[in-house]
Amino acid sequence: MSVVLSESHPEHPFNLIPELCRKFFDLGWATGTGGGISIKMGDKYYVAPSGVQKERIRPDEIFILDAEQEVVEEPRTTEKKLKMSECTPLFFNAYRMRNAGACLHTHSQSCVLISLLCDKEFRISHIEMIKGVSNNVTKKALGFRNSLVVPIIENTDFEADLTSSMAECMKKYPESCAVLVRRHGMYVWGDTWQKAKGAVECIDYLMELAIRMKSLGLEWEPQPKSVP
Amino acid sequence: MSVVLSESHPEHPFNLIPELCRKFFDLGWATGTGGGISIKMGDKYYVAPSGVQKERIRPDEIFILDAEQEVVEEPRTTEKKLKMSECTPLFFNAYRMRNAGACLHTHSQSCVLISLLCDKEFRISHIEMIKGVSNNVTKKALGFRNSLVVPIIENTDFEADLTSSMAECMKKYPESCAVLVRRHGMYVWGDTWQKAKGAVECIDYLMELAIRMKSLGLEWEPQPKSVP
Amino acid sequence: MSVVLSESHPEHPFNLIPELCRKFFDLGWATGTGGGISIKMGDKYYVAPSGVQKERIRPDEIFILDAEQEVVEEPRTTEKKLKMSECTPLFFNAYRMRNAGACLHTHSQSCVLISLLCDKEFRISHIEMIKGVSNNVTKKALGFRNSLVVPIIENTDFEADLTSSMAECMKKYPESCAVLVRRHGMYVWGDTWQKAKGAVECIDYLMELAIRMKSLGLEWEPQPKSVP
Amino acid sequence: MSVVLSESHPEHPFNLIPELCRKFFDLGWATGTGGGISIKMGDKYYVAPSGVQKERIRPDEIFILDAEQEVVEEPRTTEKKLKMSECTPLFFNAYRMRNAGACLHTHSQSCVLISLLCDKEFRISHIEMIKGVSNNVTKKALGFRNSLVVPIIENTDFEADLTSSMAECMKKYPESCAVLVRRHGMYVWGDTWQKAKGAVECIDYLMELAIRMKSLGLEWEPQPKSVP
Repeated sequence: MSVVLSESHPEHPFNLIPELCRKFFDLGWATGTGGGISIKMGDKYYVAPSGVQKERIRPDEIFILDAEQEVVEEPRTTEKKLKMSECTPLFFNAYRMRNAGACLHTHSQSCVLISLLCDKEFRISHIEMIKGVSNNVTKKALGFRNSLVVPIIENTDFEADLTSSMAECMKKYPESCAVLVRRHGMYVWGDTWQKAKGAVECIDYLMELAIRMKSLGLEWEPQPKSVP
Repeated sequence: MSVVLSESHPEHPFNLIPELCRKFFDLGWATGTGGGISIKMGDKYYVAPSGVQKERIRPDEIFILDAEQEVVEEPRTTEKKLKMSECTPLFFNAYRMRNAGACLHTHSQSCVLISLLCDKEFRISHIEMIKGVSNNVTKKALGFRNSLVVPIIENTDFEADLTSSMAECMKKYPESCAVLVRRHGMYVWGDTWQKAKGAVECIDYLMELAIRMKSLGLEWEPQPKSVP
Repeated sequence: MSVVLSESHPEHPFNLIPELCRKFFDLGWATGTGGGISIKMGDKYYVAPSGVQKERIRPDEIFILDAEQEVVEEPRTTEKKLKMSECTPLFFNAYRMRNAGACLHTHSQSCVLISLLCDKEFRISHIEMIKGVSNNVTKKALGFRNSLVVPIIENTDFEADLTSSMAECMKKYPESCAVLVRRHGMYVWGDTWQKAKGAVECIDYLMELAIRMKSLGLEWEPQPKSVP
Repeated sequence: MSVVLSESHPEHPFNLIPELCRKFFDLGWATGTGGGISIKMGDKYYVAPSGVQKERIRPDEIFILDAEQEVVEEPRTTEKKLKMSECTPLFFNAYRMRNAGACLHTHSQSCVLISLLCDKEFRISHIEMIKGVSNNVTKKALGFRNSLVVPIIENTDFEADLTSSMAECMKKYPESCAVLVRRHGMYVWGDTWQKAKGAVECIDYLMELAIRMKSLGLEWEPQPKSVP
């Protein structure tokens, strides 16, 4: 966000991160303390804490970091000792390499299943919801006939160990706004939190749809001539 | 609506469109900024904005149009510059050709899957929920033994380009209150917003049911003699 | 309910029927104006109106009937002209033949699918949730090893025409607290609204589970010796 | 909980048990009066009542027991006569044998289906969400490459009769924080209510995922060499 909002504004990251975490929990994307959310406002980076129930995060539990990934403000709560999200270096891949305004991490079952059904990439085309995802190079929305391509990296024992393979993958797929982690989940980013949220909703929809299409024997990326 | 409600009434379109958009979002029919809603009250046509998070629309973000599809009142918000829904000419197909009181557009997964399982039409009969849909010519509810028929048109690169093929399809299927757009979603209308909402709930239920029936090897339109 | 509650009590039928209708709507059991609820309190029978959005019913929209099925109090609203639920004679089957305290009607997809997968009865045994359903003759809860049996009647063009076949079925199955209507939905009753609600939750759970079991090749009513 | 909270605190068991019961109901884990929750605070054990609608439990309906499983405080409500949960001796297995801080019981469909697809144990590995479950001996979180193992016991006619077979199973599987009851549901415990809740969310997620994996022909516990 280029505009810096007051702390009482419902879209200030102190309030927005808890709200979006509750939504992600309700969708099954962030249960069992899984998943995570980070939003940039001005020159500050707001990050949810690690290992907590995502639907119960409060405004005073959020970390504030600078562009060097240093904590500039600890969570204000005095009730508990919090750890910063282990996803932080992965969020910063999106901030540094793509100048993102927000980065979201989900553990949705559709991500895990798609990562098991695909080899190096998930590809789907000719579905309207593809138009809700932008090309990270041209900054334009994908077209209905374009293929959405989400690359897949292998999972590691510790989340932070994904940092370099995610960065490498982002270099190889400069147009993509998302990376799937096999048997784990997905990272999605955008220029603003609204774009990141719209993208994760579209991509998760497309992955769930693709699983149902597979069960019904339907093709994900039809030959152009077979689509009117 | 023939009765013109005050702006504070919960069923005034300023309040009802945001409420129904939230419901559609929660049902997965309008995620990722997809879907749209338009309601007529008196001689005014209320339309939700384009490309926004549908569950966060506020009363001051709604456009008001006249019968010529001209904007007579811009959204009152001064916080953001909004674009009118790209579905507007499609909503007006329903207003002009069917004298509708409301037109709804969803991106539900069941619509997309049904559009991939059918050729020119979706047909189902002998399910009680069919009775919740009206015949647009006779204005009577369909009977249990009638076939609900929803025609399918092909998707285009830009939503507005669907206008003429939707209109043509509506001429060919005068009894239908809905048009499926292949690989995209559905438009449903009704004489009132209540009827349009009831119809979309019944048709989506029937499509989801049909997908589950197919997985279980059950027929959608049984021969009359095989149904008691 | 033997205790007569004041109109302001949240469990007075004026408040409870709207609350339960909202829950049923959210579960997909009463969308598109489908489904219905009736509760007895003292010597009065409370019935929801017909053809309305079930999640928007208000306390002043409920009909009150006596034991002869005559309206003793019209809905108090002056805003609209309401029709009494077409399910009323079916609810009264449960009141007259079983001395029920409440009767619930759902259009859930699991009911419709089960009615298409079975011939004359749905039968399942050896699942813990069966214990949430009572035998209508002995008034005792079913045991884990008992078979839950729900008889199925054929649907008719008009809901009221189900009255006699439902009554006949209830005579033939005196132990059952539910009747499935093929391609339509289910009626479930209980001595109290709590028991009716508990029963419909258990039976719907068992039907949904049975559909998933069928997809996985699992048997609904295993031979006793094959279950430890 | 080692800290003893005041009764007005939202995380006091009087308030937390009703809140978690509502959540479990909404997830389909505690419908039809099924399921149950118990939390320890200080040297007191709080237990929800038996045979009631789990989403309507109030703070004044909770039983308080001591370490000898004796009731030290009856529910304060004077409106109804409540029975203590039949799961109580099973909850105390977790308190006595594992020094648990909370024990949760669900009737989720995924538990029942997994119990029908497996013989003596449910096993899954190489899925990120496994890391949300702790080893009860080492008290450390499982690793991504570890197998989560949940043992299965046979159901009995009366819940209390599961007490000894559950205890025996817990001795045989000292590392496990959960026991599946075939055709019935699951018991899950943790050092704190937060850990128990996190574990049940992860395990249920893994079971639901495993059912979907099976439908898609995917393996639950791949050979190490076949996973990068």
